[in-house]
Formats: sequence, structure tokens, C-alpha cells
Amino acid sequence: MKNKFRNGQIVEGVITGVQPYGAFVSLSEDVSGLIHISEISDDYVRDINYYVRQGEKIIVKIIDTSDGNQHLRLSLKALNYSSRKQRINEEYKRPLVPKSNLGFSTLEQVLPTWVKGRKDAMIKVDLSHALLEGNVLDYQEEVNRIHAMIHGKTGKGSDYLGWVDWAETFDKDEFNRIKASAKKIREQADVLLVCGIGGSYLGARAAIEMIQGTYYNDDLEVIYVGNTFSSTSIVRILDYIKDKDVACNVISKSGTTTETSLAFRLIRQFMEEKYGDQSVDRIYVTTDKETGLLKPFADKKGYETFVIPDDIGGRFSVITPVGLLPIAAAGIDIDEMMNGIKKATADFNNPNLEENPAYVYAVVRRMMEKQGKDVEMFVSYEPHLLFLAEWWKQLFGESEGKEEKGLLPASVNFSTDLHSMGQFVQDGKKILFETVVLVDEPMEDMNVPSDKDDLDELNYLEGKSLHWINEQAFKGTLEAHEVTGNVPNVLLHIPKADAYNFGYTVMFFFKALAMSVYMLDVNPFDQPGVEVYKKNMFRLLGKK
Amino acid sequence: MKNKFRNGQIVEGVITGVQPYGAFVSLSEDVSGLIHISEISDDYVRDINYYVRQGEKIIVKIIDTSDGNQHLRLSLKALNYSSRKQRINEEYKRPLVPKSNLGFSTLEQVLPTWVKGRKDAMIKVDLSHALLEGNVLDYQEEVNRIHAMIHGKTGKGSDYLGWVDWAETFDKDEFNRIKASAKKIREQADVLLVCGIGGSYLGARAAIEMIQGTYYNDDLEVIYVGNTFSSTSIVRILDYIKDKDVACNVISKSGTTTETSLAFRLIRQFMEEKYGDQSVDRIYVTTDKETGLLKPFADKKGYETFVIPDDIGGRFSVITPVGLLPIAAAGIDIDEMMNGIKKATADFNNPNLEENPAYVYAVVRRMMEKQGKDVEMFVSYEPHLLFLAEWWKQLFGESEGKEEKGLLPASVNFSTDLHSMGQFVQDGKKILFETVVLVDEPMEDMNVPSDKDDLDELNYLEGKSLHWINEQAFKGTLEAHEVTGNVPNVLLHIPKADAYNFGYTVMFFFKALAMSVYMLDVNPFDQPGVEVYKKNMFRLLGKK
Repeated sequence: MKNKFRNGQIVEGVITGVQPYGAFVSLSEDVSGLIHISEISDDYVRDINYYVRQGEKIIVKIIDTSDGNQHLRLSLKALNYSSRKQRINEEYKRPLVPKSNLGFSTLEQVLPTWVKGRKDAMIKVDLSHALLEGNVLDYQEEVNRIHAMIHGKTGKGSDYLGWVDWAETFDKDEFNRIKASAKKIREQADVLLVCGIGGSYLGARAAIEMIQGTYYNDDLEVIYVGNTFSSTSIVRILDYIKDKDVACNVISKSGTTTETSLAFRLIRQFMEEKYGDQSVDRIYVTTDKETGLLKPFADKKGYETFVIPDDIGGRFSVITPVGLLPIAAAGIDIDEMMNGIKKATADFNNPNLEENPAYVYAVVRRMMEKQGKDVEMFVSYEPHLLFLAEWWKQLFGESEGKEEKGLLPASVNFSTDLHSMGQFVQDGKKILFETVVLVDEPMEDMNVPSDKDDLDELNYLEGKSLHWINEQAFKGTLEAHEVTGNVPNVLLHIPKADAYNFGYTVMFFFKALAMSVYMLDVNPFDQPGVEVYKKNMFRLLGKK
Repeated sequence: MKNKFRNGQIVEGVITGVQPYGAFVSLSEDVSGLIHISEISDDYVRDINYYVRQGEKIIVKIIDTSDGNQHLRLSLKALNYSSRKQRINEEYKRPLVPKSNLGFSTLEQVLPTWVKGRKDAMIKVDLSHALLEGNVLDYQEEVNRIHAMIHGKTGKGSDYLGWVDWAETFDKDEFNRIKASAKKIREQADVLLVCGIGGSYLGARAAIEMIQGTYYNDDLEVIYVGNTFSSTSIVRILDYIKDKDVACNVISKSGTTTETSLAFRLIRQFMEEKYGDQSVDRIYVTTDKETGLLKPFADKKGYETFVIPDDIGGRFSVITPVGLLPIAAAGIDIDEMMNGIKKATADFNNPNLEENPAYVYAVVRRMMEKQGKDVEMFVSYEPHLLFLAEWWKQLFGESEGKEEKGLLPASVNFSTDLHSMGQFVQDGKKILFETVVLVDEPMEDMNVPSDKDDLDELNYLEGKSLHWINEQAFKGTLEAHEVTGNVPNVLLHIPKADAYNFGYTVMFFFKALAMSVYMLDVNPFDQPGVEVYKKNMFRLLGKK
């Protein structure tokens, strides 16, 4: 029988064994060979396990058949990393992470050069589980062009790029007034009602929950209202606050957003009845500097007002008074938040992909789309990131969900949702990739105590910290989804959930968003679709 | 110039005007015609607005050109309803809903025959906005076959069909013990800790929030634990309960689910320290009747135990003691819930699509997939349905997300999320359809008060109820998404968010699920993928 395998042929096989000196590959029932470690990569291979895994399907090149069908000599490096797992970014020289050693401890070894070069980076992007089929750096030219567009303010919707240099341009006097009002709110109220919808509450809620955590013990309770027409929700909250001391921050650029203005009417009338003329001192208005209904309303009543800048859209407004006042009122240090914004502004003002993780993330999103993904799933392992996910969904969904384009943003909270959505993520239709946001340092931690009877058989975890266990859950899930499910995982590491890192993180996402959406040739800053339901609703409500 | 329009030609045009006697259609700049009402449909046309809308693109047949290019005679019925909007289910003879009169008030007129025939149905499925491209009744034979499979217990995973006749078979003595324990819990505790993950908490949480609403004023607070490894979450809750009187219901079939058993160890040790031997009276265990770790553990300690049946899987377990004990402890009437389950069991034990809305919904899901949809978005207009959505996501995602198949379940809460995800839903990539769950009767309501200054310009809504306004938001959104966005909307009407209707609704979804997933030729009742992360995690944790 003629040997069907010949030198130079590119073939698919399965890795049947991995040894320090090479990987054995089975090509068919009776044909196998070895990739010697010297044929793995042009680079120095410290550990072969970073490149190949047992059981993995792999594409290899046959370089020598002279020892027969059981001893073919095979090469991976001759293929220029072209198999599924090897189609990684050569420039980054990122090895795969070995099965036995996934995650944090080895990240330093697998980090791309741009992170290695930036030890101080506040967010690290790890692409070693992203199953990328192309080279991020191939997009450098496009990124250069769009970066110039963003900073030159020459692209679509460039009237809304005020956030780009907000760290420098924000009004310092107003910032001090925000801090003073926040202090006053904390003194005067048990409950702060933040009355706004969409970008007018999601940013503040994302910040407060991320930075303080759930079941945070504070004298001031923040309740979000004006974001629904649900009669049950509104009536219940009015009932809940009736014997409490309240303050209200109403947030609306135009003053005509019906959910918000309707709730504000009810709350204001309640407060006027309760406090009489003193209610004026408990109402804070964040709105347009002059146009719209709310500014003249506030001036007539004598409410303290803060300005929503004209050049920063709702979903970017968490860095403006829209977010800053409720965040500061919740007791969070907004100076620190602004420091994070300032640092991120500097870090991400650099088109070089090797030095700008925000742009790398932006490019990877578009690459995922080219690889057939329609859904980006935001994954976190901390319940206090639930509203960061909601905020992120607005930021990305509203910015790129136009002209029948864009990735659908969705979110899950693991390990909770591993017991609900996990099955689909791993084994369902292959339409999604995961963006995993990890907070490396937990807010609270404790060790597993011993138990004398050990009836629950958990003593093997005695002395282990809960956060360490959570990390193992993450690593086990990463492996299950990437290796078993073939689902790409993009990992974003945030060092800590504090005000500084929150500020840094939002700027990371802003910059990534602008780049990513401009790559779709879509205006990232408008939301034409949102107006349609309002127009229809106003007609049905009989509004003139 | 030769007339380019001729008799018999099928052409596209835009409806420029609708009159009681017909619709004017523009075919090009200088060519137009009329569809006389007699040419709309073979059926009696009570109101032409049910069939055509101004501004709509439409495909028509030219039946007479003799009066010239401004007076072509056109026909819709000659085309057998073949334009986009007319591709509706002929058998149901469902007309379109006119723009000026969307929604509730006209639903009776547009309901398919199977709902008309069942005035007492607790859930109505309205397909008149679903943009269906086929005929639901074409699936009758397949539905008959699968219905026989479900009730004959002959399909894949048929060991887990215990929920089908649960309304008859449930243990009445245990049911009474549940009611007694619930009463005891309400007497002894300020906080009930429900310790479980996935199906072991989602059903109870969905029920309690749906039936009681948010900010419900009850003496007993329910806190869900044991569903995360987040150290921050666990530590904060332990701190929160430290001065409160607590009871704990731990729920796990095997007793080896690490999230749950770890939290239970911490809570139990806290309770033993606080109550000494009395802690036994405050711990309730829902687990396997004999195998696993928890049953012997409970017997040794002397805890009251309840049984998780062998033939009902986690995501179906809300109807078993898993859901019933926490739901009853929250003060909800579980007799009423069982009545709803019983009624639904009878209503949906009927393969006839004209009489079984659960099966219609099941079929429509698969038809949507054939129409190119990969994502089903659960939409509600009430924040207290948030966890019904989460429960639904597990039910459907975990049941059909296998073998690279299935619709990705996602959820939004409107109008809140119209200001975040609304843009994508309407104008983004056309990968999704919406399943809108509407509660027709609100739990609470109030009217908009007048304001003498009317600075917010809302006096035009004076005296209108909040729920009516919410309905107009729904109708405006439905129109925006269906007509502007071309996004299919399947509407499910639930009369009221009470215990009876909750029971009825879960059985509706169970029955729909089994049918829908069997149509995919997938076992609806296993979750093989969930085991992979656990296996990996146990290895990383060093579990023997």
C-alpha cells in the first residue's frame, strides 16, 4: 500500500501524549509521530505544556517520513502557529497556559508584551484563552486612523467626545459644590432617592455597588427611582419612605423623560407636604445648564443645580455630576475616582496596540465578530459587580446596536449562574464569547473553619480562604468553557474594587468602546432607536 | 414611454393612505393605485385597519391597468397574504392590529381561535405581533407525537417527568408539614436564610418576588445564600445577620454542592454558637430521601427534613418542597399555588394546538429559530418579575443548551432597560425575538396628581393611573420594535401576579419547555455541561 503521508504535507491529528521533549500525535489509526520540542516554536520553549495539550486536535506539518508510519517527524513551528490553538498572536509570543496550572499564578508568564511593559497598568487584558484566529497587531493601522479621529474629534458624533479630556476640563468649583452637597445629604437624610433612568442612574449604581459591596452597612440608603412606570414599584417605594428622612437628586438633561419627571412629581409633592419650604434644601437637580424644563423649574424653586455637559452623552455621564453627586453622597471618595480617570486618560492616549489594552480589547471584540460570535457575555464572580455589568450593557449595546450591527451584550454572575446559564454557555449554540471581569483583591475574605464531625466532608478546605476557593471555581470554569466548550474567554483583571479603579475602569471601557464602534463605521454616540418608543408612547399618552 | 406595469405583475409599494373603502399604494414616483376593500382578503373584512397600515411597505398584485398609471387596481388577496406583514397564519385568520388601537382593548378581536375557545385560560398567547412566517398548525403531527412521548414517559430523560402529574402525586402529609414549618419559621425568625443554588433557590425567589413585589413589608426577611463563592458576599451576610434571629432552610439533593454546603457550614456554626442545642429547631433540610450527605447529617443532628423527589430535576423543583417551604415561609398561600398547578396540568394535557397555548409557545420558539433567531429575550414591564426571568433563563437555557443547539435566553426589564438595551433590541443585529410577559392587573396602582404650577408639564396625565401609563409604554415599545425594528414579539398575558397564577405559569413553562426541547431532539432534563466545571474545580481544590 502506498504511504498516503508524505513530507511537507499538512495534516490534522490528535495529541496523545505530552513529554518534556515533545508531543506525540496520532494522525490515523496506524499512523503517528512526534513533534520534538525543537519543532514547537521558533522561540525558546521553556515548558512544552504552554503550547500543546493532551487530547487536543492539532494541525501539523510532516517534515520527515523516513522512519516509517509510526515514527513520523512532525513540526508545529513550520506552520507558523496555524492550528486552532496555535493561531495566536505571534508578536505577543503568548504560550498557552498548561492545564495543570491555569490562571493567576502563571499570568505573569503568559502576559503579552504590552502588559509586561506596563507593570503599573490598572487593567490587564489576558488573551491566552481567547482562541483568537488572527493577529491583533494586524489592526494597528486602522487603530492609528481611528485614534486620530477620536482625538482630532473628526469622526461621527464627535460633538460627544467631552469625556476624552474630562479629567482636565471638568469644573473644579462645581466638583467642590458636589462634595459639599454630598456631605449635606449625608447629614440630612436616611434615604437618598436618585431619580433618573438609563445613564442617569446606571453609572452611579454600578459605582456604589462595586465599591461598597452588597449588604454594606451605611447610615444612608440609596434608592433608585424614576426608572420605571411600574405602578407597583412606585407605590411601594413611596410607602417605604413615608416615615424616613429623605433627600432627592433628580437627574435629567431635558426634564422631559417621563419615567423620571413623573416619579419626581410624586416625590416632590411628598417632600413638600412633609418638609414645607424646607424641602428646597433637600432637592438637588442635575440637568442642562440652561435649556429644557428642569433648569428653569429648579431656578424658580431655588434648588441647587449641577450641569450635565452638552458634549458627554448619558451612558458616559457617570464621570460628570450625574454620577459624582450620588457616588459622593454614598460616602465614596470622588477625588480618588477622578485620579483613576486621570491616570486612565493618560494611559490610553496612545494608539500603539502593544501599549494600550483598551484598544486591544476593542480590536478583539471585532475579531470575535469575524469569528462568528454575535453575543458578548460579561462574566463576573462577584455579586457586587452586577450593576457594572448592567452599566456596561448600556454602554456597548446602545452605542453599537444600530444599522442591524453590533454584538448583543449579555451578562451572567458566576458561580451562581453556572447553575442556570452555565450549561448553555458551555454547550449551547456557539454564538457567544465571554469577557470575564476579575477583581484580584477581594473586599472581604475569611478562611474555612474546621468542623469536628465533618458531616459535610468539607474539612479538606479547612484554612483555605473563600476568595481562593472562588478563584479555583473561576479556573475550573475557564477550563470547562474554553477546552470542553471551545468558547473564547477574554480576561480583564482589575486589581481592586475601589474608587480609583472604578474611575480607571470606566475610562478603559469608554476608550475601548469608541475604538470598537468606530471600527464598525457606526456613530458610537447617538441612540436614534430610543426615540421611537418615546414618540409612539407620547402619541398614545395624548401628549401635545 | 412604454407602461412598465402590466396586469398580473407582482410589485412592491408603500401604503400612502388608508380609507374605510381601501388602501392607496404608491408604486413609484408617478405610479399609484388602490387596493379596494374587496381585494384585501377572502374573509369578511370588518376593519381594513386590521390588515394594512399607512407607511407600510407592501407587496401587491396588479389586477387592472385600464384606468392608467395613477389608478391601477391592486389586490392583496390574490397574493394569498404573501407580503412580510401578511405572512400570517391563515388558519387563525388573525388580522393585524391597527396602529391607532394596539394592545389590550383589541386583543379579544385578534386572539387566535384556541384562545377564543378557552375564555378561562389563565395565560393567553398573542401571536399577532410575532411576524411568523409559517403556520403553527403545520406542527400538529409532531406535537401529537411528542405529547404522547411526554405522557407515555418514553422520551429521552423520561425518568425526570415527575412534574407532569405532580398535582396528583405530591405527598399530602409532607405538604402539611411544610405549612407547619413555615408557620414556625415565621414565629421564630426575623431572617430566613434560603441556602441553595440554581434550581434550589431561583424558583422560590421568582415566586416570592413576583407575588409579593419589591419593597414588600413583611416581618420575615428572606435572604438567599449558598449560591456564590464570593467572599465579600458571604462575609457581609454573616455580618448582617449577627444580631438577628434566624432560621435556615438548606436545599441540596446530594449535599455536595460546594457553594451551598460551605455557606451552610458557616451559618450552622454561627447558629450553634448563638442558639446552642436550640439551633436544631431552626434548621430545615430539603434533600434526597436517603442518599447523599445531607440526609444522614440531618438525621444525626435531628433537623426536620423534606424530600426532593428523584424524578423532578432542580430547575423544575419549585413545585416540590424545594420551592414550597421558602414560599410558604414568606407568607404565601401554597394551597392556591397548588391549585394553579392542578388547573394548568389539566389545561395543558391536550395535544391539540388550537386548545393548548403552552404547546403553541413551544412551537413558535422553534419557528423563530427557523426564521434565523438565536436569542429569545424575556421582556417584562414590572421589576418584580426580574427573578421570574432568571428562573426562566435557567429552565430554558439549561434544558436546551446542549449539542451546540438552542436559543440563548436573555432578559430585560422595560421601560428601565429601554434606556440601555432598547437601542440594540430595536436596531441592532437581527438575532433576537422578544417574549413579553405582561401582568394585566397590577398589584398596586395610583393616579397622577395635579400640580398647580405644572413646571414639569405633566398635567396632561392628571388622573391617569400609573398602570395605564405603563401600558402605553408597552404599546409604544411594541410598535417601535415590531414595526420600526422588525423584531418579532410573542406576548404572554398573565392575569395577575398571585400564588394561583404563579403555579399556573410555571406549569405553562414546564409543558412548553418539554415540547420545545424534544422538538430539538435534545434531552430536556439533564445538564451534562454543569458537571465539567465542578469536576475541574474539585481537582483544583484538591478534593479526593
